[in-house]
Amino acid sequence: MYIYGKNVAYDALTGKKKIKKCFLDKDFKENEILSLLKQKKIKIDYVMKKDLDRKVNGLHQGIILEIEDYQYSSLDSILKKENPLLIILDHIEDPHNFGAIIRTCEAAGVDGIIIPNDRSVEVNGTVVKTSVGTADRVKIVRVTNLVNTIKELKKVGFWIFGTDMEGSDYTSLDYRGKTAIICGNEGKGMSRLVQENCDFIATIPMNGTVNSLNASVATAIIVFEAVKSRRG
Amino acid sequence: MYIYGKNVAYDALTGKKKIKKCFLDKDFKENEILSLLKQKKIKIDYVMKKDLDRKVNGLHQGIILEIEDYQYSSLDSILKKENPLLIILDHIEDPHNFGAIIRTCEAAGVDGIIIPNDRSVEVNGTVVKTSVGTADRVKIVRVTNLVNTIKELKKVGFWIFGTDMEGSDYTSLDYRGKTAIICGNEGKGMSRLVQENCDFIATIPMNGTVNSLNASVATAIIVFEAVKSRRG
Repeated sequence: MYIYGKNVAYDALTGKKKIKKCFLDKDFKENEILSLLKQKKIKIDYVMKKDLDRKVNGLHQGIILEIEDYQYSSLDSILKKENPLLIILDHIEDPHNFGAIIRTCEAAGVDGIIIPNDRSVEVNGTVVKTSVGTADRVKIVRVTNLVNTIKELKKVGFWIFGTDMEGSDYTSLDYRGKTAIICGNEGKGMSRLVQENCDFIATIPMNGTVNSLNASVATAIIVFEAVKSRRG
Repeated sequence: MYIYGKNVAYDALTGKKKIKKCFLDKDFKENEILSLLKQKKIKIDYVMKKDLDRKVNGLHQGIILEIEDYQYSSLDSILKKENPLLIILDHIEDPHNFGAIIRTCEAAGVDGIIIPNDRSVEVNGTVVKTSVGTADRVKIVRVTNLVNTIKELKKVGFWIFGTDMEGSDYTSLDYRGKTAIICGNEGKGMSRLVQENCDFIATIPMNGTVNSLNASVATAIIVFEAVKSRRG
């Protein structure tokens, strides 16, 4: 996996991440990062800016690190706590939304994020960057079939909260206990089968004329309402 | 002002916006947009992709429209309602955050957004794009001196809610009546003088190790809590 940008590189170089290789703009001049690279004896490929542009789809600021692929967690590992709060992403596609959701979940103390294997973002460099490094601090689980996972969660006592336009006011629900909140796809919302397996549908009442919130913003509003409900 | 991207262009061409000119990639092929341009008799400059790249700093998808500059509202115009809910941005710098905050405010039914003239984002093409067109549906006011404006608002009965790490739990506050919520700069938070003029400081309790929320996410969480408090 490639991660990129000065801040992300600095975090990786001062953290525990295993760095395989560094691709560096010939004109890169950040001394602190250069001495960390030297100190850690990282193999460096000096390349042209256009070669970096080709490798990643984002603001690399002259530095790309090749690191080990993201280590996903197992479903079991996020079910160990007595009453976990989980977030399920039903085919979120935009890596910026995914990164923003990870950051919010870390701040809120969410116990795990579940994503499907197919037709979904995965943890890549853009996600890591948007998450401001929190992707390593939240457990993220990839599953083959979301609907099956939701059914398994229900068997072990989870309440499943979907999010949609036509449900109950999100502030009227009780999010205590084993709770999983589903965030739907940016355009299409939750898939039909996922929706059918929800115990509750939470709706954020809106007053505007456009009636849409960004997926990561909507998730943040509901997650923090859930955190509050669980505290109370 | 330049606005760009197919969706934004389509909205502008089907709405009431006065379009001065269109810069179009020689290879642009979206028939619906092309016929709208013809139908509305918009002057078209056919240019190379690289000329478009130079004009705007974002994904233009081959089309840039030159429109009249954004029409800011007057402070008076957002004080007419009995109990307005206002958002004050204390030097937000990132146009994506500003656009996201506008979108959230529109969905939440916020009555106006106040920004300072200096060292702040203004409504530009990137903001319009990130706001998914809601910038025209929320009143945005630019003021010369934020602190003076806050003092004026207090004189006419507003309660001023700052946001910071060390204040009261944001869910314990009463946001009814004339309410203005301040969102601080992405890195530095609220400025000292602004902070000193707050009646309350609202804090979002966090559980993570990074302890930071994106400015637009934090604003969304507090705005929707306020909306709920005002409903109840």
